[in-house]
Amino acid sequence: MEQPKLEDPKLDFTEQEKTELTKPWQELSSLMEEGSSEQLQEFLAGISPSDTALAISRLKAEEQNRLVTLLGPEDAAEMLEDISEVQAADIIEELPPEQAAAILEELDSDHVVDLLGEMDEEDADAIIEQMAPEDAEEARQFLKYAPDTAGGLMISEYLDFRSSQSVKDVLDDFQNNREEYAYYDVQYLYITDEQGRLEGVLRMRDLLFPKRSTALGDLMIANPFKINVDASLEELENFFEDHDLFGVPVVDGEGRMLGVVMPEAVESAGQERSVKQFLGFSGIIGGEEFRSMPLLSRCGRRLSWLSLNIVLNIAAASVIALYTDTLAAAIALAVFLPMVSDMSGCSGNQAVAVSMRELSLGLVRPAELFWVLGKEAALGLINGLALGLILGGVAFLWKGNMFLGLVVGGALALNTLVAVSMGGLIPLVLKRLKLDPALVSSPLLTTVTDMCGFFFVLSFASLVLDKI
Amino acid sequence: MEQPKLEDPKLDFTEQEKTELTKPWQELSSLMEEGSSEQLQEFLAGISPSDTALAISRLKAEEQNRLVTLLGPEDAAEMLEDISEVQAADIIEELPPEQAAAILEELDSDHVVDLLGEMDEEDADAIIEQMAPEDAEEARQFLKYAPDTAGGLMISEYLDFRSSQSVKDVLDDFQNNREEYAYYDVQYLYITDEQGRLEGVLRMRDLLFPKRSTALGDLMIANPFKINVDASLEELENFFEDHDLFGVPVVDGEGRMLGVVMPEAVESAGQERSVKQFLGFSGIIGGEEFRSMPLLSRCGRRLSWLSLNIVLNIAAASVIALYTDTLAAAIALAVFLPMVSDMSGCSGNQAVAVSMRELSLGLVRPAELFWVLGKEAALGLINGLALGLILGGVAFLWKGNMFLGLVVGGALALNTLVAVSMGGLIPLVLKRLKLDPALVSSPLLTTVTDMCGFFFVLSFASLVLDKI
Repeated sequence: MEQPKLEDPKLDFTEQEKTELTKPWQELSSLMEEGSSEQLQEFLAGISPSDTALAISRLKAEEQNRLVTLLGPEDAAEMLEDISEVQAADIIEELPPEQAAAILEELDSDHVVDLLGEMDEEDADAIIEQMAPEDAEEARQFLKYAPDTAGGLMISEYLDFRSSQSVKDVLDDFQNNREEYAYYDVQYLYITDEQGRLEGVLRMRDLLFPKRSTALGDLMIANPFKINVDASLEELENFFEDHDLFGVPVVDGEGRMLGVVMPEAVESAGQERSVKQFLGFSGIIGGEEFRSMPLLSRCGRRLSWLSLNIVLNIAAASVIALYTDTLAAAIALAVFLPMVSDMSGCSGNQAVAVSMRELSLGLVRPAELFWVLGKEAALGLINGLALGLILGGVAFLWKGNMFLGLVVGGALALNTLVAVSMGGLIPLVLKRLKLDPALVSSPLLTTVTDMCGFFFVLSFASLVLDKI
Repeated sequence: MEQPKLEDPKLDFTEQEKTELTKPWQELSSLMEEGSSEQLQEFLAGISPSDTALAISRLKAEEQNRLVTLLGPEDAAEMLEDISEVQAADIIEELPPEQAAAILEELDSDHVVDLLGEMDEEDADAIIEQMAPEDAEEARQFLKYAPDTAGGLMISEYLDFRSSQSVKDVLDDFQNNREEYAYYDVQYLYITDEQGRLEGVLRMRDLLFPKRSTALGDLMIANPFKINVDASLEELENFFEDHDLFGVPVVDGEGRMLGVVMPEAVESAGQERSVKQFLGFSGIIGGEEFRSMPLLSRCGRRLSWLSLNIVLNIAAASVIALYTDTLAAAIALAVFLPMVSDMSGCSGNQAVAVSMRELSLGLVRPAELFWVLGKEAALGLINGLALGLILGGVAFLWKGNMFLGLVVGGALALNTLVAVSMGGLIPLVLKRLKLDPALVSSPLLTTVTDMCGFFFVLSFASLVLDKI
């Protein structure tokens, strides 16, 4: 009789998993060798976006290039929507500008601008040159807006009518432009005047009941909600939290309508911001890193952040160099130096994370230093005492020396207080200085807590050196 | 003549900022003392959701309680939508169950379940008891679904009709239920049979053109997209990436329709996941921490993670304890021990972040250990050599001792290789073991890199001890 299989997590792979493991991009490669472009399209349509992303990222640059050519502009555009912007921009950048332009014209304006924004300016310009004059003009216009503003997040695909037009005019227009509008997320109709100034808005369902001869001006909601083109991501998040709408019109200083921001675009920009925060906090700077990128560029980007850290580390460790005599006299301290600095770094990072989170939720303002200091100092005192007792106790038990315990425990307690207080404050100060807390908080905090930790342990020890 | 003010970032506050700083919750407090409930409602409607969140979070628990009572269920529900779920659940939990139930009945089903899920089971049950029988039944049903599945993310507010009903029936129903439907995000009408099985879907705009006597069955899209109630967040993300829809119907194993998942719910669950990742990575576990929470519970939660770390730290430092003789003979090494372990920790964390990011984008699978190892080992070798050269050079220049430089530089180079390779692998292994990479990766990595770092420095040094 066979033993029943346990459903525990495991580290070895079943045969089926091994097959699945290598499937999507190998199949894609072999289809590219032998299959027709219809088979390719069918294959890509049949796998999930994350499988597409995986398969594409494992192809070599020249294979990606050939795949895009095999697919043709429309299907290539669809495929590029499934993969990350950084990767999509890399692929498009390698294409001849005419081919790149043909693909971009299949995407909506928001996406086009995001991709062009990821490229070198020169490559982007070459591609824009090859776009239809109207689209090129629009792309140039949209590229001027900062990425996380209403201008950077809006799309230009919306429907506008005059207030004097009737319901019938709209329905006729729908019938005539069915194909083009199929690409639009039409939820609202906007009413503008001859100068393009926004006058009102109509929901699709407002067209259901009235007579077909009714003028739109009589149905529209006048003075609708609108957002200035410079509005920040925070303002947009606030707006959509307050108003459960499918989009908000974007206007310039003169009230002229420029585009529409959809709530999905705001959500996804917010998510991107969280991701950047996480990556920056872990020392991945300058945007996403994927393992499909060239080795040397990955090395260089990581080293640029590490070299800042090595300088800060040398600065912190120089405190130890000042006290080598103390250390030589009580070598047991050397065991505790890294522990005091590591533990304080951990405690401080917790406070950093809470401050960063409260800042991004608007629950604390960059100026409220004293409020945060009060909250964190109290916590730092309690946790410092708890951790100091533990580590001091360990030190005492190890060597049977009460003074060693007092030095180590006291230094950790005091340094935890410093680390937690500093950790709470650093993101607020960086935000006021217009620096990115995600990138700078952790190296800055670690340097301070290392220095102070080494100093506390060694200076306390030098006071009672004959007793340790 | 006055000097023009420089627009530089600054750390001191203008008078205006000082006023703004203390405004929203002070005004709220004074309105609660003196104002009418209309003035309160007006005040809250006039400030942004993030100001509301800030103001509420600064009130004492009893003030929050009184505010909710002053506002009445409908406005209280609106206010609670502006603040974080954790905070909202805390406030509701403190209310008498009847009052809590009245407020919850004003929220949509997805939100109700999220809030009930944040509470103690006992409190949640007491509140459900007080809800209208139908809503109570639904809440109990919905609470059974895991949070990040289709069941946990769906809403029950959707419109369903039979295929035999006509366009006129729908329009009449709309007219009769205008008030109730105003709360619905009606984009689609669903067609179900007598057993509640999903048969088809209709877009609102499909009602615009046909004759009013047409049966819905003739207009509907049959066999529409649907999602199983157990579908994961990843599956839902894939679905909405593939299909640009305003919602997807959720069905059980028998094809009966249970609810609708909106893309906003999926986006916001994804964002919550990123936030948890960031917080867990920084040592904030068990969900959000806000400074408005009680001090001792904040201390306890942070300590629970720190005490794991202190144990791991003691384990790592015990390597140093084994080599105190070596260290006493070459005390300069003590300066470099924390540097080697810190720098390797930084390098390793970069690899952890890239792995976590690629895992969540589906660009790497938990089983692809060798692929990741190859990619990271190559990078670790290059960056290890670069960093080893720098630190070894510093050590050599400081003491003019080539062997010190070789020991320190060699140890950092080798330990960087170990740290970067381990950092890349750890999240994949944890994911396969069904552990949360965000919580465990960093402590695990640091322990290994500390141990190896101390061991490399001290064991290399013991080989050439007479020359240092």
